[in-house]
Amino acid sequence: MSPRSDPAVTEINAEIATLDPEWLKRARSHLDRLTKPPGSLGRLEELAARIVAIREQEVSCPLNKAVYVYAADHGVAAERVSAYPKEVTHQMVLNFLSNGAAINVLARQHGAELVVVDVGVAADFADVPGMLHRKVRAGTRNMMHEPAMSEEEVSRGLQVGLDLAAAAHGEGRALIAIGEMGIGNTTAASAITAALTQQPVAAVTGKGTGLDPQGQAHKVAILESIMRKHFADGPGMLKATPLQILQRVGGLEIAAMTGMVLGAAMHRTAVVIDGFISTSAAALAYAIAPRVKDYLFAGHRSQEPGHRFLHEYIGLEPILALDMRLGEGSGAVLAMSIVESAVRLYEEMATFARAGVSVANG
Amino acid sequence: MSPRSDPAVTEINAEIATLDPEWLKRARSHLDRLTKPPGSLGRLEELAARIVAIREQEVSCPLNKAVYVYAADHGVAAERVSAYPKEVTHQMVLNFLSNGAAINVLARQHGAELVVVDVGVAADFADVPGMLHRKVRAGTRNMMHEPAMSEEEVSRGLQVGLDLAAAAHGEGRALIAIGEMGIGNTTAASAITAALTQQPVAAVTGKGTGLDPQGQAHKVAILESIMRKHFADGPGMLKATPLQILQRVGGLEIAAMTGMVLGAAMHRTAVVIDGFISTSAAALAYAIAPRVKDYLFAGHRSQEPGHRFLHEYIGLEPILALDMRLGEGSGAVLAMSIVESAVRLYEEMATFARAGVSVANG
Repeated sequence: MSPRSDPAVTEINAEIATLDPEWLKRARSHLDRLTKPPGSLGRLEELAARIVAIREQEVSCPLNKAVYVYAADHGVAAERVSAYPKEVTHQMVLNFLSNGAAINVLARQHGAELVVVDVGVAADFADVPGMLHRKVRAGTRNMMHEPAMSEEEVSRGLQVGLDLAAAAHGEGRALIAIGEMGIGNTTAASAITAALTQQPVAAVTGKGTGLDPQGQAHKVAILESIMRKHFADGPGMLKATPLQILQRVGGLEIAAMTGMVLGAAMHRTAVVIDGFISTSAAALAYAIAPRVKDYLFAGHRSQEPGHRFLHEYIGLEPILALDMRLGEGSGAVLAMSIVESAVRLYEEMATFARAGVSVANG
Repeated sequence: MSPRSDPAVTEINAEIATLDPEWLKRARSHLDRLTKPPGSLGRLEELAARIVAIREQEVSCPLNKAVYVYAADHGVAAERVSAYPKEVTHQMVLNFLSNGAAINVLARQHGAELVVVDVGVAADFADVPGMLHRKVRAGTRNMMHEPAMSEEEVSRGLQVGLDLAAAAHGEGRALIAIGEMGIGNTTAASAITAALTQQPVAAVTGKGTGLDPQGQAHKVAILESIMRKHFADGPGMLKATPLQILQRVGGLEIAAMTGMVLGAAMHRTAVVIDGFISTSAAALAYAIAPRVKDYLFAGHRSQEPGHRFLHEYIGLEPILALDMRLGEGSGAVLAMSIVESAVRLYEEMATFARAGVSVANG
């Protein structure tokens, strides 16, 4: 990456703090005073303790929640790597705005504000209300032939997410989720996963929104050619920096989500990540600044085979495993509700002392 | 079992209908018209289709939901099979009534009415408001020495659940959950699991609310002695009917939950089951009337090793796996919210045609 970007990354890294072990300890001992056998809430206890340690204060419920859905198009869609035509990115953004998509239903049920962000859709939204206009470019370039983005486009994409994370902090968000819409973006996520985890393309490439076996084989072939073009190093794969990976084979919505994860960690905001694509952004953020991990919650494990490699790469265990593969932040918002349950239990349950319940023998 | 009970079981069986495949088909084709790739909501699609086929009508949201927590004591608690003293059953019921327990917090968050039912607590609740008084007996007998219940007590316990299922139907509940409180009841659930699945006691016995390894070994020894007493048949285990198992090694809350599962299926009400103990009740109901399976949703997989055997026995895949082991219906209410999400997506998402979104290339 250019020298211009390195100081920014160094600066971001310096502004992300690890969680204070004292706060985690304090949270865990509060959990042990609640009227339940110690540890009996299972993973909910760790979720609650982490939120408390992130916030470093009592957390009031309902949590102030928002889900950010970043939309962008992908030049590589021209290679027929998706079951859907490219126009669907644009059409689905309009569907978000008229409340017809899955994420609308889930955000409404679980009390999360939905923020739709155009960061690179290949259509003109100039007059469309109800969304944020942050278009960097009308879709990425086709990474089969050239890098998906310029260095400047990567920086601007990252900045969209960094700015929205700062705004979320200003609005008092206690918990945010990230999701995306972009025909062709599982191809970008697979390339990012292969580059970050050094796994073969075939192991990290799935059927996306619904390719048949032939379509999936074609996608693998395209991806192998993309990896050779951008990361070839004789028989092996060239190691590249996270920003180089993002520039060559990423996407504008992926850049924005990477920026949002970095920004959320800088502002001590907990982030629930969603499917394969948003997790690829989180993995890039983790590669840039490993301490973001303390602020990340893996919403769910999808059907995409590469998703598991990314969770392992960051070291996260997904909250849900419902075989979803929709994106849009849908799995993240479901998981947000579980995280909120954990926090409410922490805040609202009685202690053994207050309820007059006997503690364990022994 | 006595001849008196058999006609009742035959009658219940006759009143439980399998789901109409036409309704399932209709629900699935509606799901395929919604603005998402076919199948991309994963397991949520099957949850929604099943609810629609159970109801055989459009389902209005928010769902009318209730969680029934059945409390009872266990004579076998005298054998030191629990980490907690027996008084905790009574104390926790009072905690439910003053809104201090985990289930209170979760039911409030997810909009489920909480119904607390005394079906056999060894304490006097005569004047206590806010709960249902259905006490059959002040705790079961100690199954180390004699059958836990008489035939009549089993019938009365079942009837409590059958009656409440009928009442839930009358109140228009679209989705109910069952949970329990009873010190010693993982011992009963382990015995039921061993008897139903013919697994060795050691494979289906866990640490309950928090036994140390020594306590757990003691619990296994007690259970082995219980199984020999009630089901010995030379080297093997005697096959017993579900009602015989319930009578010898069950519990009053387990009988009531078995009755509620049977009654819910009779009235076409979907039931979310919770942890190891409520699942043992569901497994007994399934053994009595296999068609109850169509109405059952496995809320979560707990840390108790026997839980997995029961899910396999009925043929259910848990919705959540968060390592919880609290009971009270806590995991079931979390899962209820996921089931409700599935139904809301079904009811509220736009179709491709309405939203003007292109369908997949073909």
